[in-house]
Amino acid sequence: MLSKSQIKLITSLKQKKYRQQHGLFVVEGVKTIKELLASSLKLHALYTIESFNIDAKLETIISPADLKRISFLTTPNTALAVFKRPEPKSIDCNNLIVALDSVRDPGNLGTIIRLCDWFGIKDLVCSKETVDCFNPKVIQATMGSVTRVNINYVNLEEFISSVDVPVFGAFMEGDNVYSSELPNNGILVMGNEANGISHEIENLVTDKVSIPRFGDLQATESLNVATATAILLSEFKRRS
Amino acid sequence: MLSKSQIKLITSLKQKKYRQQHGLFVVEGVKTIKELLASSLKLHALYTIESFNIDAKLETIISPADLKRISFLTTPNTALAVFKRPEPKSIDCNNLIVALDSVRDPGNLGTIIRLCDWFGIKDLVCSKETVDCFNPKVIQATMGSVTRVNINYVNLEEFISSVDVPVFGAFMEGDNVYSSELPNNGILVMGNEANGISHEIENLVTDKVSIPRFGDLQATESLNVATATAILLSEFKRRS
Repeated sequence: MLSKSQIKLITSLKQKKYRQQHGLFVVEGVKTIKELLASSLKLHALYTIESFNIDAKLETIISPADLKRISFLTTPNTALAVFKRPEPKSIDCNNLIVALDSVRDPGNLGTIIRLCDWFGIKDLVCSKETVDCFNPKVIQATMGSVTRVNINYVNLEEFISSVDVPVFGAFMEGDNVYSSELPNNGILVMGNEANGISHEIENLVTDKVSIPRFGDLQATESLNVATATAILLSEFKRRS
Repeated sequence: MLSKSQIKLITSLKQKKYRQQHGLFVVEGVKTIKELLASSLKLHALYTIESFNIDAKLETIISPADLKRISFLTTPNTALAVFKRPEPKSIDCNNLIVALDSVRDPGNLGTIIRLCDWFGIKDLVCSKETVDCFNPKVIQATMGSVTRVNINYVNLEEFISSVDVPVFGAFMEGDNVYSSELPNNGILVMGNEANGISHEIENLVTDKVSIPRFGDLQATESLNVATATAILLSEFKRRS
């Protein structure tokens, strides 16, 4: 059985404010929950139709009807877990860092986190305006990668100003990335879906790069930020 | 005012069966509608709150309440257009072709269509099990690129067997794409989100390629099909 206070806590975690206040976030789906249980993350509570055979103090067996009451999904899975938000670690400037300047779409952030994991990027640095990486839609899209990438939310202008490394930014009118020199360390900044990189951050970019468009003049004006990140990370890593 | 038969027709177009039966599809949003009006596509009907100043026989000014009745979106835009499905053109095997083997997610197909447009891929060939490119969610994700890429739905096994070109397929255990020879023509096959490329199609692949993973052993097992397509198309094109 679920108590009123449990239901209230879980449903509050839809909102960033309460995720931060409680230091908790929600994960749904047996596969992702198992992946997170095997990681360094700390479980706060597990609500499930079938037992996971874990510490009984943390597990509550509930009915499908109760799961429907707390699930954030239209079609609930068979389990919902509440994990503790990990404390971000310090940022290592000796490697390539990805920085996001106001990326707003949860699916894009989820894809970018998964790309960082794939390409061995340890640090993802997000402006305060970037969507929260513990947003349920981001968690669904990352497939567990969120536990393997160190994600810090910072004042991006202050952070970039404070470190002495090359700063790459994706721009429409940058240098052809295929023929650019790309080092093993530095910051790769990706901008907002509609407006790109803000002027404040643009002023800090040392190398503007661009993915050449091969389609004709009528072709699409831009690539989605997650696909552009995929191509740029591939370029940095294929030469390393 | 909207007639009952108009409402019935428009709402039926949510379903692939009726889009095929009527040869029509729905587009929402002023920006995308204007882009499609400027393309070679034929408008069937436009329902809008504010006039577009086009042929009055095709345009119906409606109230926001009426738009809400026909919109497929939770938050309707200010206009909804019905376009005629274009007849696909024949496939040109002298260029690089992208082939999709049961890609099911509308967002992934939309992103891949946009990537084809960006990278100058003229032909996208889809298995019959691939999501319909005139699905409203695909149209929202393509941003008009759907008018510039020639999309054919075929029996993929028969099509690939019928042409004499190299067939590249994305596999986890393929050759490192960064050091593979990539020609200017051929077929690049991308597989289903959960199961990858089917056995029937795998038998027709002449060159298995793979994007190297740089993360450690615990890193994510796979890349999303749209981001993998982005990286592979970038590899084919950067050397052309």
